[in-house]
Amino acid sequence: MRDKRIELLRERMAREGTDALLVSSLPNVFYLSGFSGSTAALLLSEREQLFFADFRYHGRVRQEAGPAWEIIDSSASPLRELLPATASARGLTRIALEAEHLSLASYLELQKAGGAEYIPGRGWIEELRRVKDETELATLQAAESLGERIYSELLPLIGPDTREADLAAEIEYRARRYGASACSFSPIIASGVNSSKPHAGYSSEKLVPGAPLTIDLGVVLDGYCSDMTRTVFYKDCPPKWEQIYKLVDLAQRTAFEKLRPGVTGRDGDGYAREVIEAAGFGEFFGHGLGHGVGIQIHESPRLSQAEARILEPGNVTSLEPGIYFPGEGGVRIENLIWFTADGVRSFNQLGTELTVVG
Amino acid sequence: MRDKRIELLRERMAREGTDALLVSSLPNVFYLSGFSGSTAALLLSEREQLFFADFRYHGRVRQEAGPAWEIIDSSASPLRELLPATASARGLTRIALEAEHLSLASYLELQKAGGAEYIPGRGWIEELRRVKDETELATLQAAESLGERIYSELLPLIGPDTREADLAAEIEYRARRYGASACSFSPIIASGVNSSKPHAGYSSEKLVPGAPLTIDLGVVLDGYCSDMTRTVFYKDCPPKWEQIYKLVDLAQRTAFEKLRPGVTGRDGDGYAREVIEAAGFGEFFGHGLGHGVGIQIHESPRLSQAEARILEPGNVTSLEPGIYFPGEGGVRIENLIWFTADGVRSFNQLGTELTVVG
Repeated sequence: MRDKRIELLRERMAREGTDALLVSSLPNVFYLSGFSGSTAALLLSEREQLFFADFRYHGRVRQEAGPAWEIIDSSASPLRELLPATASARGLTRIALEAEHLSLASYLELQKAGGAEYIPGRGWIEELRRVKDETELATLQAAESLGERIYSELLPLIGPDTREADLAAEIEYRARRYGASACSFSPIIASGVNSSKPHAGYSSEKLVPGAPLTIDLGVVLDGYCSDMTRTVFYKDCPPKWEQIYKLVDLAQRTAFEKLRPGVTGRDGDGYAREVIEAAGFGEFFGHGLGHGVGIQIHESPRLSQAEARILEPGNVTSLEPGIYFPGEGGVRIENLIWFTADGVRSFNQLGTELTVVG
Repeated sequence: MRDKRIELLRERMAREGTDALLVSSLPNVFYLSGFSGSTAALLLSEREQLFFADFRYHGRVRQEAGPAWEIIDSSASPLRELLPATASARGLTRIALEAEHLSLASYLELQKAGGAEYIPGRGWIEELRRVKDETELATLQAAESLGERIYSELLPLIGPDTREADLAAEIEYRARRYGASACSFSPIIASGVNSSKPHAGYSSEKLVPGAPLTIDLGVVLDGYCSDMTRTVFYKDCPPKWEQIYKLVDLAQRTAFEKLRPGVTGRDGDGYAREVIEAAGFGEFFGHGLGHGVGIQIHESPRLSQAEARILEPGNVTSLEPGIYFPGEGGVRIENLIWFTADGVRSFNQLGTELTVVG
């Protein structure tokens, strides 16, 4: 599958009139080569696959990226020297760069060093990453299942002295114990008024009885991210919150039923938004319905009013409507889905029934 | 102290012939404003302190950054539109950018949008961050002490079934329980042959008896990073490793005694390297002696053979000599130090005596 990706990039290089592509962003290096270390760059030309790696990583490149990649030792010289020298030696004259990832400073250094013409490219690899293949879908399934396992283990731990930070700690702990390399983002554990902020982190405060408790977590497994959210209620769920919860749940299920390839990200967002707006709470759903998930926790495509592009089979997105009352609290429910030939499927096994804990 | 930083930047702006500075890197935003959220940019002019923040963060900006900052709402427009409009409205004509942090794509967008002349600046704020003030030193002390507390709690947990990943999980868990916002890097737990790699992560393998076990960990507390390493021995320490351990320990203590402001980073590195070279192991000490630590885990200054700059009072660096035998194992000992008027002091209370665990 990596060969296919490289073939597509070579076609793009030809279309854009460049004879090489420098890949400097680590998620894209991983996507093309499987290398998971912290320093690397790739130079892809019509016939060559060059891997710039320092001495620490030569063994890992051979092991993870395999023999298709020719290693160029970068221990002694920075890329601003190595790239021009390599370009001259190999007769490469027009090299595309990842403009969204390369710093202005690095670009100016390369310009100054010369050796080739440097062309700012945008999203060449991200464009490919929008559509996941079978192996990627299987990895995302394993990651999301691990996230659900960890979530399921949290609820029985909740007691009268539980603080938001304690649950965050349990998530981080279990992620490593169960084979994840990391959490895909710092967990959100937001109780009471904290749950009114979609991007709350966690605090050292105890859980608030009779109020929402939002748990938003993800792990990184074999290089791919999971993402899920459940809002439960601590001790008791007052009728007002029950109404809001059921509305958010309905919005989530409605969007899941209606989503399919061929519609735009805006349409997709609308399927959930219409439900919430029809109930009079539209102004309290202040973010988009979903974002792409893969090697990174936020990638393409998006489900939002700003997204005019068409959704395709193989896209993977979160599906996460929410209603947030400033100064009070909020409810969000999030599953992870993928687009098939004629609809969407969920990576989640866990239901969304209203849950009271503690 | 933030006022002082801003004053120094305004002097730099004047010297460089610019009338404003765009700060887009989050560590630098935190350094100048105290804001700890995940999206923000600052525009500093001769008289104004402008804070670009979206609606989610207005409350947090007021709370963390305070009234000195004028909030400009960025919810509806990207920076490529907001910055040129703001520049025009406020009569700013030459705006310095953080060239090492701004992407080439963002720069090209700003160039196209116009509204002002954009000047690539390098390291203006990093230069200030090299020298820590009293408050920063106190925060770093608290962070390093928390790291030591967590480390001390790990050793009694080690049993016959302990895997590297289990200890990493305990570190991540305790960091959150004890008030850290995160680990400053993914813990290194490297047993046996894994300890031969300075940048090993952790594996799902059990600890190897009679071999080194390297534990390298850090936390983020109130925005500042800690960093420490100890190498212990599981079950038993063979004489060969005892010799190596004592040599690394001597190198660490020798450098600690000799380091002082006024010497270069190269000199500093040399104090430890000479000890290891004199014993005939120079080729197995394959990295620099130390790196700056502060808001980021790696910052200026460095203690390495490539660093010709002079060390100053207020600098904070790690002090971490190591000896690594490929395919066998390695030993590293790391403390965190700061430079005073006439020498260095250590943030660590924990000793470095040879320790056998399990």
